[in-house]
Amino acid sequence: MKKVFKANLPLGFKASAVACGLKKSGKLDLALLYSELPALASAQFTTNSIIAAPLIISKKHLRTAKRFQAILVNSGNANCFTGKTGLSDAQATVEFTARELGLKKNSVLINSTGIIGRRLNISKIKLAMPKLVRGLTVEGINAAKNAILTTDTFSKEVTIDLQIGKCPVKICAIAKGAGMVAPHMATMLCFILTDARIGQNVLDKALKSAVADSFNCITVDGCMSTNDTVMMLANGASGNKMILKGKDLQNFSTALNTVCLDLAKMVVCDAEGATKFIQIDVTQARNDAEAKGVALEIANSLLFKTAVFGENPNFGRVASAVGASGFKIKETQLQIKLGSLKGKTVKLSVKLLRGQGKARVFTSDLTPEYIKINAEYN
Amino acid sequence: MKKVFKANLPLGFKASAVACGLKKSGKLDLALLYSELPALASAQFTTNSIIAAPLIISKKHLRTAKRFQAILVNSGNANCFTGKTGLSDAQATVEFTARELGLKKNSVLINSTGIIGRRLNISKIKLAMPKLVRGLTVEGINAAKNAILTTDTFSKEVTIDLQIGKCPVKICAIAKGAGMVAPHMATMLCFILTDARIGQNVLDKALKSAVADSFNCITVDGCMSTNDTVMMLANGASGNKMILKGKDLQNFSTALNTVCLDLAKMVVCDAEGATKFIQIDVTQARNDAEAKGVALEIANSLLFKTAVFGENPNFGRVASAVGASGFKIKETQLQIKLGSLKGKTVKLSVKLLRGQGKARVFTSDLTPEYIKINAEYN
Repeated sequence: MKKVFKANLPLGFKASAVACGLKKSGKLDLALLYSELPALASAQFTTNSIIAAPLIISKKHLRTAKRFQAILVNSGNANCFTGKTGLSDAQATVEFTARELGLKKNSVLINSTGIIGRRLNISKIKLAMPKLVRGLTVEGINAAKNAILTTDTFSKEVTIDLQIGKCPVKICAIAKGAGMVAPHMATMLCFILTDARIGQNVLDKALKSAVADSFNCITVDGCMSTNDTVMMLANGASGNKMILKGKDLQNFSTALNTVCLDLAKMVVCDAEGATKFIQIDVTQARNDAEAKGVALEIANSLLFKTAVFGENPNFGRVASAVGASGFKIKETQLQIKLGSLKGKTVKLSVKLLRGQGKARVFTSDLTPEYIKINAEYN
Repeated sequence: MKKVFKANLPLGFKASAVACGLKKSGKLDLALLYSELPALASAQFTTNSIIAAPLIISKKHLRTAKRFQAILVNSGNANCFTGKTGLSDAQATVEFTARELGLKKNSVLINSTGIIGRRLNISKIKLAMPKLVRGLTVEGINAAKNAILTTDTFSKEVTIDLQIGKCPVKICAIAKGAGMVAPHMATMLCFILTDARIGQNVLDKALKSAVADSFNCITVDGCMSTNDTVMMLANGASGNKMILKGKDLQNFSTALNTVCLDLAKMVVCDAEGATKFIQIDVTQARNDAEAKGVALEIANSLLFKTAVFGENPNFGRVASAVGASGFKIKETQLQIKLGSLKGKTVKLSVKLLRGQGKARVFTSDLTPEYIKINAEYN
């Protein structure tokens, strides 16, 4: 297994990006990920009950089709809280993409990130579509990885090469940050492409599990976005023996977990205004769910996060958050170990002395810069 | 019913305060509230599972005794997360108080606020006790109301005069702020004194209901303290016909609700770093619990609070918080009306179009000053 922090497309994939004018800055804002072969898809979405229009459309396609060839992503506008108009706008972007690529509509998946509550300018997307499709190349991933960003300060990318049997297989993923960064900005997005041949059921399970231990274990401000999505295509182009179980599945899952965890950590590192990367381990809980609940309660405590920013080793705030978690944890069951606060990475270990459950979550500190970024209107 | 924003003790109560040295600043830090007659007590405590030693002791006394005559409160140290030593220290402060006043130990209630996780210096309290008791006067409430403060910027006090039958009755209350203000500081405290004669059961119900609609409807940073307490004594000195039901109970409850709501609003106004007072009304929810859940989710959203600080009318952040509340609310059921953000008071109204439930909560904005105050170590 070989890992590089760079996006290298697997066999049979191409990508492209253009600046179609959704971002006022004139930066890249429209990305297309394309598989030459019909591919399996799997996805995990936000659990927010108010979700963006493109997610509603993509969910429908995932229910009604079995193979997919394109993912269209725009930044600069989340197309969320936009009502029926937003839905028909999202549908229109699917149609532009399908027509230009000569595909069925339900083989196209879509995503949006950016301002919430404003109408998406679809004529800009329509105009840009021919150029976007003409530009599809293997190297295009390097433009696409930037086109999905909003106010991230760096691109988030990773590629793992592994062997399934004797066949080389690649998993490549790009992501954009979770920090609800500039005004009205939201959304964590991750796109994972692989040329592995794999069964639909094991793919779904592997992705769900990888996300649970990575993207669902990070929190920046406790605010759940309306657009959060992790989406994966597997096109089988590497020709490996179908992954269904055993050592092959184990290897593939390990690689997928690594990809997701690396990107999740990058998202935390790039959280707006953050000066610290915080790792919280909760062990000896009644069960894993309790451990994760306690860890997230600490990770979302404003008082803990400001204390870390101030390099102020405040055990009381950790204890207070543990007690507030809703689990009936007694003071006598609680052991707190807080590492040095001086460096960039801070480690907190909490033992609950009542079982074998454990969880690890990642978060950042809370800084005046976060407030500044999120208060400013532009 | 006549209301003044000043503490005037009801009949049969005296108060006193001294600076015993728990606060490094040399300010008042030990308060005593005393009833000449044995009084009924009622209390509401934090639901944090890790609670401070004085709360454990007070809860025990409330279970084992029926009448009470004294409440001792220190600021500067919360006596929380202090283990068995903390419990015996709290017990010792009860003994000092009971001995000096000639009372049974379980007729004394205690409370602490300040630094979490450090041992309380009880010898300072022991030394100060004779002077504290000698100083008991009707006017002493003006010292006591200041002695319970930590980093509050103003004292919080209110008195209501009402008639029960033809008998004048007084309800007087003092509070300290909920903002987890200076380093390690925590705790919202409120003490309510009345000379009304009232049944224990109706007193308990009236207080619980008043707290539910006031102190339990405010949030500054979503951090639940280990010491939060609302404590009430009713000594019956006014000689009114016992309040048990009907119009008398209704009048008394109205006055008690008003006292609690006024103090709760003052606590929000005095939240650390706050520049805005935010009122959130959620209506047409399935039921009141759903309305309150949604309102608190918005009130605790960092993105909403920073948007208000920045006077940035951001509907998307409200919609996102509603969707994240855990109730399955659809976009089509949601109407958001956000008043002007320019003034000191901001009003947000959210309609869910699915029932008759409603709730009103109060919060403050989130500012760089909050971070600064809570990050600094001293």
